[in-house]
Amino acid sequence: MDNQMIIASTLDELRAARLLLDGRVGLVPTMGYLHEGHLSLARRARAECDRVVATIFVNPTQFGANEDLSKYPRNLKGDLSLLESTGVDLVWTPDNETIYPPGFSTWVEVEGLTKPLEGAARPGHFRGVTTVVAKLFNAVQPQVAYFGQKDAQQAAVIRKMARDLNFPIKIAVCPTVREADGLAMSSRNSYLSAEERQSATVLFRALTAAKDAFERGEQNAEALRKIMSNTLASEPRAQIQYVSCADYDTLEELGMVTGKALLSMAVFMGKTRLIDNFVIG
Amino acid sequence: MDNQMIIASTLDELRAARLLLDGRVGLVPTMGYLHEGHLSLARRARAECDRVVATIFVNPTQFGANEDLSKYPRNLKGDLSLLESTGVDLVWTPDNETIYPPGFSTWVEVEGLTKPLEGAARPGHFRGVTTVVAKLFNAVQPQVAYFGQKDAQQAAVIRKMARDLNFPIKIAVCPTVREADGLAMSSRNSYLSAEERQSATVLFRALTAAKDAFERGEQNAEALRKIMSNTLASEPRAQIQYVSCADYDTLEELGMVTGKALLSMAVFMGKTRLIDNFVIG
Repeated sequence: MDNQMIIASTLDELRAARLLLDGRVGLVPTMGYLHEGHLSLARRARAECDRVVATIFVNPTQFGANEDLSKYPRNLKGDLSLLESTGVDLVWTPDNETIYPPGFSTWVEVEGLTKPLEGAARPGHFRGVTTVVAKLFNAVQPQVAYFGQKDAQQAAVIRKMARDLNFPIKIAVCPTVREADGLAMSSRNSYLSAEERQSATVLFRALTAAKDAFERGEQNAEALRKIMSNTLASEPRAQIQYVSCADYDTLEELGMVTGKALLSMAVFMGKTRLIDNFVIG
Repeated sequence: MDNQMIIASTLDELRAARLLLDGRVGLVPTMGYLHEGHLSLARRARAECDRVVATIFVNPTQFGANEDLSKYPRNLKGDLSLLESTGVDLVWTPDNETIYPPGFSTWVEVEGLTKPLEGAARPGHFRGVTTVVAKLFNAVQPQVAYFGQKDAQQAAVIRKMARDLNFPIKIAVCPTVREADGLAMSSRNSYLSAEERQSATVLFRALTAAKDAFERGEQNAEALRKIMSNTLASEPRAQIQYVSCADYDTLEELGMVTGKALLSMAVFMGKTRLIDNFVIG
């Protein structure tokens, strides 16, 4: 690193610091409590771009009324240290009033793609996501923005928003990073008790079982969904919210898998909601 | 002028041409059929910016089902000639499929400010406006964008959108340009018969009467609205859609005028819908 990492909190501070960044800028938007998944995005940005900007903002508008906003885990000091060691140039850590000042009333909404899966389970979630991401795009003005495949529908929705609204930004989607036993990394894994953490591998096992069946020739989407839900049912701590075998582009549930498809699920492990997915075909 | 005006139609053509424009870029978004009002925006952009980009696009999503999209007046050749003579550097003339490709499904919506007045009279209108303007902002990436005070609520809504979504763009609002007899210039004036054109001065006369009363001390907003509607009622060809005396910032109807306020109206002259406004206070 040739420079120290700059930390901006107000929009003016961010804009002033951004003006000093030349060349291709990569953006890594996060809600903090960083893990290897986030750091893999930052490292890829570091490798592909001249400058890397990360943001840390727990976005209230993407949480539902009954969701875990107030207890969402935070560790700003640890996050900044991880980002600095990854070679990030600038971190924006806005507060709620910076992002949503009094009287804020403009929303960005993607229709269609946001209806099923996470959109059905979490009404309003994606409106919050697309609105804050549009704001981050305009505030940071990156050439590339990095998102994780772990949030598969979010990545699809943001790709669609960027294309529909002509954002001059490339959306890069990076592979899910997993623990040694297959559990997808997530800030929410910190909520799990030791027993729940053990049981949580069932998501990976369910996805693997369905993928194996597909690779052995099973193209019936309902059969693949059944394999996932049967595997999940074998774990008493797991409560299924949805399992899905959907078209990769439209996210509509499939009858037969004839092209690229998304196997995905949302599962409550105790009070903790976990999601995961595989791409097949 | 040191260069010939460039005309782009596809998004790729626009982006390639935009890359060649250095310095401060001003954007003048239009629906074509240009008059002195548009040209005053282009001239101000020419005076204030290093480069000027104009767009000509009759945006279908801001027209209601019963509105005049199909017969909206067009004169591309004349428009290009006027823009070139004003010193515009680049004109984007996208077609519908360029702006709204198949599967387009992302919308930008300002709540609150879009509810009264034009928003109440034209449901969905401002959603179409903010969505296309967000797209133009992202496609052209200007430092300043120019809009007319004639569309007072539109200007307020776009200022709000730009601020709420952190667009790095200054919104400049320019005075309404009027004919010698006071009629605000509008592409829709071309719809008026000779008799309607004569009668159309009643909007200016109604606004002037209310403004005069305010300047003589009348602060009661209902009295000012009454002055406007009485003046309009004196013209048999005029059918009032609304008259308003509203807070300048919130556009909420006032009881008493104690600060900056907007006098505005929408009036049908035969089949042609005209709007006009004055700022007082």
